[in-house]
Amino acid sequence: MWFLPVPSGVEANGIHLLAIFSATIVGLILKPIGMGGIVFIGIVMTALTNTLPIKETLSGFANTTVWLIVTAFLIARGFIKTGLGRRIAFIFIKLFGRSSLGLSYSLVISEFILSPAMPSNTARNGGIFYPIVRSLCSAYGSEPDDSPQKIGSFLILTQFHADIVISALFLTSMAANPLAAEITKNITGIEIMWTTWALGAILPGIISLILIPLLIYKLVPPEIKVSSKSKTVAEEELKKMGKMKKEEKVLLGIFFLVLFIWITSNFHNIHVTTTAIFGVGLMIVLRVLDWSDIIAEKDAWDAMLWFGGLVMMAGSLSKLGVIGWFSNTVSSYLINFPLTPALILILLIYFYSHYGFASMTAHITAMFPAFLGVAVSVGVPPLLAALALAYFSNLNASITHYATGPAPIYFNAGYVDQIKWWKIGFIVSVMNIIIWIGIGFPYWKLCGFW
Amino acid sequence: MWFLPVPSGVEANGIHLLAIFSATIVGLILKPIGMGGIVFIGIVMTALTNTLPIKETLSGFANTTVWLIVTAFLIARGFIKTGLGRRIAFIFIKLFGRSSLGLSYSLVISEFILSPAMPSNTARNGGIFYPIVRSLCSAYGSEPDDSPQKIGSFLILTQFHADIVISALFLTSMAANPLAAEITKNITGIEIMWTTWALGAILPGIISLILIPLLIYKLVPPEIKVSSKSKTVAEEELKKMGKMKKEEKVLLGIFFLVLFIWITSNFHNIHVTTTAIFGVGLMIVLRVLDWSDIIAEKDAWDAMLWFGGLVMMAGSLSKLGVIGWFSNTVSSYLINFPLTPALILILLIYFYSHYGFASMTAHITAMFPAFLGVAVSVGVPPLLAALALAYFSNLNASITHYATGPAPIYFNAGYVDQIKWWKIGFIVSVMNIIIWIGIGFPYWKLCGFW
Repeated sequence: MWFLPVPSGVEANGIHLLAIFSATIVGLILKPIGMGGIVFIGIVMTALTNTLPIKETLSGFANTTVWLIVTAFLIARGFIKTGLGRRIAFIFIKLFGRSSLGLSYSLVISEFILSPAMPSNTARNGGIFYPIVRSLCSAYGSEPDDSPQKIGSFLILTQFHADIVISALFLTSMAANPLAAEITKNITGIEIMWTTWALGAILPGIISLILIPLLIYKLVPPEIKVSSKSKTVAEEELKKMGKMKKEEKVLLGIFFLVLFIWITSNFHNIHVTTTAIFGVGLMIVLRVLDWSDIIAEKDAWDAMLWFGGLVMMAGSLSKLGVIGWFSNTVSSYLINFPLTPALILILLIYFYSHYGFASMTAHITAMFPAFLGVAVSVGVPPLLAALALAYFSNLNASITHYATGPAPIYFNAGYVDQIKWWKIGFIVSVMNIIIWIGIGFPYWKLCGFW
Repeated sequence: MWFLPVPSGVEANGIHLLAIFSATIVGLILKPIGMGGIVFIGIVMTALTNTLPIKETLSGFANTTVWLIVTAFLIARGFIKTGLGRRIAFIFIKLFGRSSLGLSYSLVISEFILSPAMPSNTARNGGIFYPIVRSLCSAYGSEPDDSPQKIGSFLILTQFHADIVISALFLTSMAANPLAAEITKNITGIEIMWTTWALGAILPGIISLILIPLLIYKLVPPEIKVSSKSKTVAEEELKKMGKMKKEEKVLLGIFFLVLFIWITSNFHNIHVTTTAIFGVGLMIVLRVLDWSDIIAEKDAWDAMLWFGGLVMMAGSLSKLGVIGWFSNTVSSYLINFPLTPALILILLIYFYSHYGFASMTAHITAMFPAFLGVAVSVGVPPLLAALALAYFSNLNASITHYATGPAPIYFNAGYVDQIKWWKIGFIVSVMNIIIWIGIGFPYWKLCGFW
């Protein structure tokens, strides 16, 4: 691939980076050495071959999403250390723990309720649901290296895939959804309102959200299925824990403060990562965490290294013109197709291109305009094309462990290996595509979108 | 400080950042919480007050020097894990271990020999001398939390302060020395040749290098002073270790390869950090280090966090015009002084301004031009002014634990606390100033520099 001719519009280094990135992804699949090592070699090769200057090669380590992920692990550490996570977990179990499925639905509903007010799906999961889900696993004695199947892998995968669908539901439930709306306005002149977006998403979305826990329940059956004693056990455990300790109260206060700043961000424009590091700063000052807890939080540094490397490579592919060239090539090819196969191909290629992205935002920025443009020019009704592509911009994040912020967080918890992650991701993606096209298209006709 | 009026030429946020940076430094001195926490709060405040955008606030974590420091800890981990460090340590002890002073001089001489060919003092120490010195400490049973005074704090401080002087010795023994020469050429028209630089530095430099181990020997006396048995003990230990293991040989090979690429960098221009991460990459591929060793290397992440934060703040002070404004203010004030006090004040202010810098390069970039300019205009002979300022650009790095790349490396080893580090740094700085002015000035007269 290294020696491929450089297409016009692509910078010379673009093809080299594409070769390194592809080799890294193949390495992640074949795994001659561990994941971190593979990505690290990718970073080294990028710098050593002068494909990117060393400064840009390291740029992923200063990426705001990467640091949001780092803070997720630090916040989760606070939940574990103070015992607050354990307490919340037992409260969830007490209320919803009669069955694993019920527990899972209760978490999905919680995220659903929170989502319209919290556009960063990484913050939503890293700051809130990951710490709770992780604590729930431990409360059931399900650890990554000790019976992950007990309930951990089920809860982790369900929450992750539910988040992907929840991100698609509202204009404000994923950070880059407004960007998709903005691009739509620029290209088609149509303004997608909050209500239009939600109306179109709610039916297929709710069907997806109902089916995902059931599907994953079949694919990764938790050993704990029903537990009639769970309520009593949880009550006993909560009694044993006694009243909240001072550190738990402090952490709970920080938690709500951070949540409040996140939810009100429209009013003050404080960046989601700023709020997150502010929360960690408070945890340090108020002695919820010691500095030694922070530097020993291996999962955080692991995720920073491998996800930071992938973000750098995937992001630079866009900058060097590779994605633009790919989009244009595909577009110019599809424009000669009849309407229906063209539309299906546009949606599928757009969806599965996400194997090459480490961020929904990056994918929308790089590919949404060209693909929307071509869909409209082959004759797809503009609002239909825009909404379908916008929803798919979220749904496509189910396929890898680096597809969007929450992916490295849940993946790095260690409950699911990469092969299983990709396999289940693919199955869920097929189910979502069937639902959102098969039910979505007729439903949107009813809604009057086309 | 936050509410100070903004001088012209300084961006509005500059004074805010100055306030945060100063508060951070005061925090480092008073230590209401640990160092890492203080710097983290500084980072949080920088972002939260919108003094810098969050992207720039995180920029220190993508800094090439910061990553050179991270690799230093990873390379040292390889030396420890394979036992190669222990072996090299015992070879040093066998050859020079009759006295602690002798051992220390042998290390200083080794760095002296290597230095003209290796301009990055961070790589020189992080990649070569830190792993050896750290292994020596352990070979003597001197660990940070268990008898650091035995020999560790002595060896660490001596090597650090010797490195500062060695950096000043040659045009090519510190990465930014050629920059000082370049600025000199631009301002005064005088070209400082390699031989001129070395001739001027060699006499005061050698005096400094002879006195530093003696001074630190007095200030931080090692408990192990003379050891007539050390040769026999070292020989026995080496015999016990037997032949080199495969991993040791592999690491030694990587070590020499990295050294070779560093030394030949004039020919291929591979960035010093690229070479360093390449070395770490080889260590991963050739299984000298596991990925789990890397993510568990707390010292590396500690240094990345606190040094990365300080580099970001100190670097941005320059960009926002604060340093330029400071230099110009001082200059315009000094220009009315008589020659001798003006010269001494110029040199002293230039020197101790380094409390506000986390890099020699940054200091030279930000302050060398203004201070050279003013020295020349008050009537100091240009070559004298240029050389004195250039040498001081290196020597000033003795005063803090964040002054230059090797500082966080040796400091984070944990043998010397911050108060002692600053105290001894100040004493060494006074000694160096006396030597380089008291002996330097007359000697440079003899050399015909003025």
